Amino acid sequence: MVKIFRLKSIISIKDFEREDVEYILDEAEKLENIAQSKEVSNELKGKILGLMFFEPSTRTRMSFETAMKRLGGDGIGFENSGSSSVSKGESIADTAKMFEGYCDALVIRHELEGVSKFISDIVDVPVINAGDGAGQHPTQTLLDLYTIRKEIGKIDDIKIALIGDLKYGRTVHSLSNALGLFNNIKIYLVSPPELRMPQEILIDLNKTNVEYVVADKIEDVIEDVDVLYVTRIQKERFVDVEDYIKIKGAYVINKKMLEGKDLIVMHPLPRIDEIDTDVDDTKYNKYFTQAANAVPVRMAILKTLIKNNPK
Amino acid sequence: MVKIFRLKSIISIKDFEREDVEYILDEAEKLENIAQSKEVSNELKGKILGLMFFEPSTRTRMSFETAMKRLGGDGIGFENSGSSSVSKGESIADTAKMFEGYCDALVIRHELEGVSKFISDIVDVPVINAGDGAGQHPTQTLLDLYTIRKEIGKIDDIKIALIGDLKYGRTVHSLSNALGLFNNIKIYLVSPPELRMPQEILIDLNKTNVEYVVADKIEDVIEDVDVLYVTRIQKERFVDVEDYIKIKGAYVINKKMLEGKDLIVMHPLPRIDEIDTDVDDTKYNKYFTQAANAVPVRMAILKTLIKNNPK
Amino acid sequence: MVKIFRLKSIISIKDFEREDVEYILDEAEKLENIAQSKEVSNELKGKILGLMFFEPSTRTRMSFETAMKRLGGDGIGFENSGSSSVSKGESIADTAKMFEGYCDALVIRHELEGVSKFISDIVDVPVINAGDGAGQHPTQTLLDLYTIRKEIGKIDDIKIALIGDLKYGRTVHSLSNALGLFNNIKIYLVSPPELRMPQEILIDLNKTNVEYVVADKIEDVIEDVDVLYVTRIQKERFVDVEDYIKIKGAYVINKKMLEGKDLIVMHPLPRIDEIDTDVDDTKYNKYFTQAANAVPVRMAILKTLIKNNPK
Repeated sequence: MVKIFRLKSIISIKDFEREDVEYILDEAEKLENIAQSKEVSNELKGKILGLMFFEPSTRTRMSFETAMKRLGGDGIGFENSGSSSVSKGESIADTAKMFEGYCDALVIRHELEGVSKFISDIVDVPVINAGDGAGQHPTQTLLDLYTIRKEIGKIDDIKIALIGDLKYGRTVHSLSNALGLFNNIKIYLVSPPELRMPQEILIDLNKTNVEYVVADKIEDVIEDVDVLYVTRIQKERFVDVEDYIKIKGAYVINKKMLEGKDLIVMHPLPRIDEIDTDVDDTKYNKYFTQAANAVPVRMAILKTLIKNNPK
Repeated sequence: MVKIFRLKSIISIKDFEREDVEYILDEAEKLENIAQSKEVSNELKGKILGLMFFEPSTRTRMSFETAMKRLGGDGIGFENSGSSSVSKGESIADTAKMFEGYCDALVIRHELEGVSKFISDIVDVPVINAGDGAGQHPTQTLLDLYTIRKEIGKIDDIKIALIGDLKYGRTVHSLSNALGLFNNIKIYLVSPPELRMPQEILIDLNKTNVEYVVADKIEDVIEDVDVLYVTRIQKERFVDVEDYIKIKGAYVINKKMLEGKDLIVMHPLPRIDEIDTDVDDTKYNKYFTQAANAVPVRMAILKTLIKNNPK
Repeated sequence: MVKIFRLKSIISIKDFEREDVEYILDEAEKLENIAQSKEVSNELKGKILGLMFFEPSTRTRMSFETAMKRLGGDGIGFENSGSSSVSKGESIADTAKMFEGYCDALVIRHELEGVSKFISDIVDVPVINAGDGAGQHPTQTLLDLYTIRKEIGKIDDIKIALIGDLKYGRTVHSLSNALGLFNNIKIYLVSPPELRMPQEILIDLNKTNVEYVVADKIEDVIEDVDVLYVTRIQKERFVDVEDYIKIKGAYVINKKMLEGKDLIVMHPLPRIDEIDTDVDDTKYNKYFTQAANAVPVRMAILKTLIKNNPK
């Protein structure tokens, strides 16, 4: 039986079933040679991706562009902090309608939650949410899952520590939701008390088979995990900067802590100092691989959506 | 007999004969499938368009880029409010000479009238004027004519109302000149007294067979027209903002006004509030189609000029 | 015997032997038809160049993009005055590692000397230095040499005057070093006393067979040279603006000075007023040709490095 990917647009990881996730990961695997520049593809020749980055995000934008170009297609668009220069005051709906006239699919980054859903509802072409405010960033989650599967060999039966800013970190929210689709998962939620995982995500997790444990320190969990998923703690999150300085060191990973352990270290990047650079040259470092995995995973998404939804 | 397009560059719609206009529109029609991503083209493979946007214009820039990429070519260039970052003080002539060394054709947007003509005179490659100050924007006019012909079936024998800011609106000036090439045209010039069509355009029209009528209100003309061509009225045009507030409402189109009429509504976009969004889902709305028509029309222009003027 | 280009990265012209220079120039010559849009190439189809322009340089960036696109490849990247918007505080090393994950080669422009060397040491893909501070700009030098060879027929046995700001001018430093690889070269170093060629370059020249002569005025050398290589003198280099005004005129080339001479005029561009525009239409003008030569030379570099260093 031929599997079909059900979704027209990729707005939230919550819209995914396990088989939808696996469809994209399997497709990404098949595209590895093209992603790594070992094979040339004409898969999306003549196709154009519209990049609507109302908020700058060089990393995400460039990996989408690379994905499109490796498949023989191309991108157009804008990247700026406000919508002013784009639209001279026109509505987001009108801007999206214009892009629809030019492109085969749209990628949206916006500071407000819900914008990509809104646009997906008014255009016929597929829409991909590349991060909307404190909301979702589903393609990041797919590449995180791809990295786990590729490096550990499976997603079921793993123990993962989510570390750092669990309150505001968009990626750890989406990843927690996605892990709920898999079996026998244990999540350690390691953060300072000020930055605990939000209640609504815990409620989501309670509806799944995921076991989760709240922890204060990396030391408490490091012996038991397959994955350390590290995120940045931003100074700006603290009312009192003294509090930040006090807790900050407790959430830094270094080589010494990792020695003898059987685990991988991931990070959505950019990293500031929450992973010491002495980890870079160890076998634990999977964060640069993870970053490179953006290409095959976004290729899989673009290929699937554009092929399934011809103009 | 094989028709040949005469012009090396597209600077002003006033350089066009009727057959030049029709050449481009016919060519655009043939390129529709490629423009709509239903067919793949290698027509301009390896060719590069130079985008010299001294003034930002995301919409125009993106449709030219899309046109080039759909034909298998590509673009390079800049888009900024001043020329400073491009040229570190070099003359426009030198910048253009540099672009000529890299590209097969140039698209120029500049705040000063005459810049694209000046550049066309000093380089060998074709030059396309994408708007120079209060001057011309000929490719916009070609896509306007393409939209009229496609939606109404002809350009001859139509009645069109040009609405809004007729004094400063570059697109309505170029469109008026172009309509002078066709037969049995009636133009209603609907604007507040402060924003009437300039005398020199009326003098141009007097040399043609176009019949024109000056009007104050949409109501006075709506029963008699095939096309409502709406443009934005900018507050900044009024010395006294009270005058603006007073007249503004009289130039807004809404669904109720249109009911039962046999006409189409066009707008060069961006729209602010001069067309109510309740028109968007009606059969009258042709402004998004018009925006999308930028692609086949600009493809036709690029293909014609680059093929006719090989380096 | 098949010649192989030895270098993985192009960081400094000092890393080149004569045969390395000739390898690139010969390759560029073969690519002329593609560079001039007379032939279409798939040589680098599917390949992606990462453009890391920490400092803006529209001219250099666009010629690299053009080179890549003419060969069937493409580019991604950023161009801004600081690294802030790119990296949100991440290290240059991390940014480079990310680019490595997406791209087949990297081009770096940075205000600090040594950055491209540093990056080349930590990534596996080839790195091209597109200018680092007061340091090197080796691809400019290669296109300068290409222009001399193409216009004069050889690089050996020439007499060249380097004119203008020899103290801070990156291009004249690299070019001097490169000329040291050739035979029977005479260099006239023509500058105001404040802007003499730095001692370390003279020491480099002393180790070669190049004969050099320091001069104050163009008039003193113009009868004896094959090439006038003109650079801009920036007002900002002078403590006392009066000094600038006094000397400035002595370093301007015009048509009258050139009449009857057998020489070519080169300039890395942008030019401000150090070459009068009355030279533009003479046979002496090779500065626009030189600018256009950026394309075949950078094509040769990109093709060579990417083919020699597959991912």
